[in-house]
Amino acid sequence: MVAAPYGPGGTHDAHVRRLRDLLRSAVLRGGFPGGQLPGEPELMASYGATRAVVREALALLRREGLIDRRQGVGTHIVVHAVLARLAEAHGAADPRVDSVFNRRMRPRVLDRSTIPLPAIAAERLGAPPGVPCLRLEYIALLDEEPTALATNYVLFPEAERLLAMPFDSDWYALLRDAGIGLDESEFVVGCAPADATTAPLLDVTEGAPLITIEQVIRDAAGRAFDLAHIHTRGDRFLFVSRAVRGHTSGA
Amino acid sequence: MVAAPYGPGGTHDAHVRRLRDLLRSAVLRGGFPGGQLPGEPELMASYGATRAVVREALALLRREGLIDRRQGVGTHIVVHAVLARLAEAHGAADPRVDSVFNRRMRPRVLDRSTIPLPAIAAERLGAPPGVPCLRLEYIALLDEEPTALATNYVLFPEAERLLAMPFDSDWYALLRDAGIGLDESEFVVGCAPADATTAPLLDVTEGAPLITIEQVIRDAAGRAFDLAHIHTRGDRFLFVSRAVRGHTSGA
Repeated sequence: MVAAPYGPGGTHDAHVRRLRDLLRSAVLRGGFPGGQLPGEPELMASYGATRAVVREALALLRREGLIDRRQGVGTHIVVHAVLARLAEAHGAADPRVDSVFNRRMRPRVLDRSTIPLPAIAAERLGAPPGVPCLRLEYIALLDEEPTALATNYVLFPEAERLLAMPFDSDWYALLRDAGIGLDESEFVVGCAPADATTAPLLDVTEGAPLITIEQVIRDAAGRAFDLAHIHTRGDRFLFVSRAVRGHTSGA
Repeated sequence: MVAAPYGPGGTHDAHVRRLRDLLRSAVLRGGFPGGQLPGEPELMASYGATRAVVREALALLRREGLIDRRQGVGTHIVVHAVLARLAEAHGAADPRVDSVFNRRMRPRVLDRSTIPLPAIAAERLGAPPGVPCLRLEYIALLDEEPTALATNYVLFPEAERLLAMPFDSDWYALLRDAGIGLDESEFVVGCAPADATTAPLLDVTEGAPLITIEQVIRDAAGRAFDLAHIHTRGDRFLFVSRAVRGHTSGA
């Protein structure tokens, strides 16, 4: 453990970390015109930082795979992150026209089979283990790039309707096409490193951080019929959540 | 890239990944009595999995630092994850009695200084760059274990009130103690690897996945007065978000 505090402003390392966080925010939000970062002198002036701090902050972002630096060309952004409203990611809000959940994704189906409901999935869905369920696993592609890997366990009779339906964009479009109502969605959001077999599916390096989401979807009667384990690329997808005091449903 | 599909059920690797996801869910949610996982034969029977699949799934969870396995003793959970309601994490809902946001955390302050507002923070807050702001940076300890690292940029006059107030539990308790109203909170949620200097502060290994949150807090007049960059340990903290169709505020 590191002893603290170091006094006003903290250490060199702290300055690097803070500048990295500020720059990462702008990089992921598309805050630099033309995807080009300002030069070192400009960054030093804007942030009152030494050249060493600026260089180390940029080196960290480069190591994360967010920017590239080339001698004589400068520093430019190499990721295309998407900001998605959490309510749309839940499937609980109708997607806006420009939303990635407005049929802009394409699935690469890895598995679509009827299996006995696994024990832990049974517990999460409140259904008996071993009853038949549809396991539908796919990679969500956005602009043909892998964005997320999702494994769904869907109970019958909903599974029957999904099996009869072509799956050609996003999960919520599939549910709508199949006439299946989504009344409530619960997420448990965390993160985990990409293991050796998940990494190539999402086109990231082993150990890359992924956002993990466990989702339970319920119908209007409160019956849980769909459990999903989702791994999302942290450099491609960001979730925007808003909470207003006194209006906390949905958060 | 991996060609797909492999036919019904997929590959050995896919079975490992899915079992790992199911077990991780139960591990993080405290789903095994006494923190003890069932033995291999029981897991094989429950999931229709081969011994190799069970062992590899457990090996992945062990490598993530979630479980430990000992010959003759079995497999037990070594993390104490906390499920926090996203609305409470926003500070927009009053914390429940048992919530971690009910004064159960303790801060280790790393920096509390008045600095010129950095450029990107200025943009996010809609304030002029260079105006004075309070930078308050701390590690949030839960049960004396580091859980999150947060850097706040707070505008005046709110900063003045924070400077006069002892900071002894969580951020929202501090705001309440200082008589500062929080009317709206926005999160941008992602994930990133722990860099070499952040890792020891949070007591994780370099490269460990962290949940990243960029927060903007607004007062009742809609004025943004606080920007925070937060890094949260993914093995310690999970966020629970619920969305109900037709009630999407807060998501």
